[in-house]
Amino acid sequence: MLTPGDTIGILGGGQLGRMLAKAAARLGLKTHVFCEKPTEPATHVATDVTCARWDDRAALERFAGAVGVVTYEFENVPAETVNLLTPHVPVRPSGRALEVSQDRLAEKSFMNGIGIGTARFAPVDGPADLPGALETVGLPAILKTRRLGYDGKGQARLHGTEDADKAWAAIGAVPAILEAFVPFVRELSVIVARGLDGSVAAYDVVENHHRNHILARTLVPAWLETEACARAHAMARRIVTELDYVGVMGVELFETGDGGLLVNEVAPRVHNSGHWTQDACLISQFEQHVRAIAGWPLGAPNRHSDAVMDNLLGEDAGGWHALLSRPDTAVHLYGKGQMREGRKMGHVTRLFPKGQRPDIRDADH
Amino acid sequence: MLTPGDTIGILGGGQLGRMLAKAAARLGLKTHVFCEKPTEPATHVATDVTCARWDDRAALERFAGAVGVVTYEFENVPAETVNLLTPHVPVRPSGRALEVSQDRLAEKSFMNGIGIGTARFAPVDGPADLPGALETVGLPAILKTRRLGYDGKGQARLHGTEDADKAWAAIGAVPAILEAFVPFVRELSVIVARGLDGSVAAYDVVENHHRNHILARTLVPAWLETEACARAHAMARRIVTELDYVGVMGVELFETGDGGLLVNEVAPRVHNSGHWTQDACLISQFEQHVRAIAGWPLGAPNRHSDAVMDNLLGEDAGGWHALLSRPDTAVHLYGKGQMREGRKMGHVTRLFPKGQRPDIRDADH
Repeated sequence: MLTPGDTIGILGGGQLGRMLAKAAARLGLKTHVFCEKPTEPATHVATDVTCARWDDRAALERFAGAVGVVTYEFENVPAETVNLLTPHVPVRPSGRALEVSQDRLAEKSFMNGIGIGTARFAPVDGPADLPGALETVGLPAILKTRRLGYDGKGQARLHGTEDADKAWAAIGAVPAILEAFVPFVRELSVIVARGLDGSVAAYDVVENHHRNHILARTLVPAWLETEACARAHAMARRIVTELDYVGVMGVELFETGDGGLLVNEVAPRVHNSGHWTQDACLISQFEQHVRAIAGWPLGAPNRHSDAVMDNLLGEDAGGWHALLSRPDTAVHLYGKGQMREGRKMGHVTRLFPKGQRPDIRDADH
Repeated sequence: MLTPGDTIGILGGGQLGRMLAKAAARLGLKTHVFCEKPTEPATHVATDVTCARWDDRAALERFAGAVGVVTYEFENVPAETVNLLTPHVPVRPSGRALEVSQDRLAEKSFMNGIGIGTARFAPVDGPADLPGALETVGLPAILKTRRLGYDGKGQARLHGTEDADKAWAAIGAVPAILEAFVPFVRELSVIVARGLDGSVAAYDVVENHHRNHILARTLVPAWLETEACARAHAMARRIVTELDYVGVMGVELFETGDGGLLVNEVAPRVHNSGHWTQDACLISQFEQHVRAIAGWPLGAPNRHSDAVMDNLLGEDAGGWHALLSRPDTAVHLYGKGQMREGRKMGHVTRLFPKGQRPDIRDADH
């Protein structure tokens, strides 16, 4: 267990690391960010920074010696990096959570193995596997790289068997998984936390809307039957418990036409669809993650307000000044220099009294 | 006007600077803290740090060249420091606010000059002035140093004329002010902000309780007639407008038995009695100050919850682990090493639904 004044090590220097560092500071903890570039967003607020490559053994060992616990803000941390750190310092969440979430095949197999539904899927290690996989999965289907995909990258849709070769080439001819396309009604998510003592706390289920495969808007709460909320929470609890997980996890769900819930994917870290917790809850997902990895009691995931969170993607961030004047709106900017298309530059959260969230799922900002 | 990515310079490295730096980061701004010791709380979260003396001209000039605006987190910044910076970079709030608030005589004269009531007072430049001052002010009275007093330091109570010499010695025989003791019913405060465009926003009036002259508890809101709240807000607005002030100011008030409001003192900075805004408002006093000094629109000072804020003084902070388990409680720790008696180590804010704050003004924590 850490004590106030101790240091949390964070692998990765992006906006999630930045917001984790601020949350750690609120609790009297220092932070040490390990990242590749000296100007990444988290470096602006971290107490200490190490800029080095993920395979720099000497830098990693010095880093491990300078911190009380290590966490990460992105799920593609090389397994080798975690393996180098683990003998020296606790890494939370553990490498097991990374293994499962870094590989779509391992992830879906794990889910099905603990009784949690997913899209139908089949492994595709080469083009020869595709006909059989299509038979298992059906059409339409999506071919995805097993590893290193995010925000819709490394994916190709198959409408017919004739798309198979093109799809295989499009994803770069690497080990893949074929997934059935789920005709979902809505995309939902649950931000769940598990403490070192095994206690679990989940925030309310939210509804997510994407633009070009990138999260654009989160509606809080999702308007969902109480029973379905309980089912979503039970799934999230099951996942973190079965993984003996410590920290915050984002669990992305599909709601199907018959009211079923399938897991789309999980992120072993704080999650974009939980950013609203900074403004609508007393304890944010970032503080919750810090509490968990520090071995401290989890906070209550209570929500004092309804909320709508909009990401500021690329040029959206150019509107920062007008956004600052909007009532009941919190503006969060990540300190990134260039407004590249689709780049997450910041987010805004609008608050509404409980029960008064408007239905703006399809409206413009 | 600053733009996101710019840097705010902060004079002082204490907890107020620390919380300002975090608020600046939320808005995409970097921070550069100028302080005397390399381990002060704000240095843990600042992007850059300069450790130097307040009269180090070269260090101040380098600092001025590296930031877009300078602000301060304590009111005893030497006038010479501000004078060295002002030709190079905007300092907000301006030196005028420091002049008024650093000198109790200037402060009370200013207040009375703009029609705002204070305790009766008289200047005391030496022991020979005391009899006349006592005649003006009456008994009981308090002799206070004109400058550099805080948390009850540099004060001596006079119950009779025979206490005069002892009081003069007790405060260190320096230029002083004799103030009438105000038989107040309650101590209140208003956290008010004024933007570069002259707009003013004030948070709800709060009620403060002290232990050994140090703020111990803030009750939000103060239970006060609407008319009295409006009067308190009008006084705060008048003060910041007359000073052409830019930034957040803490205005401490006495409520007298007949419902009158007198200004006790003002702090030209974010204020301990405004810490609850971090948890009960969408825009905290820290963000409000950053918005003001950046030349950006002020946020709405709306409050979504009632609150009780308790300072963690000295050994209080030893209870951090139990506090983390309390429902509806946010724990803030400042990263200070030693728990010295009376030292502000952190604070906790408890939230309550609006209209449901309990009456715990005299209760223990």
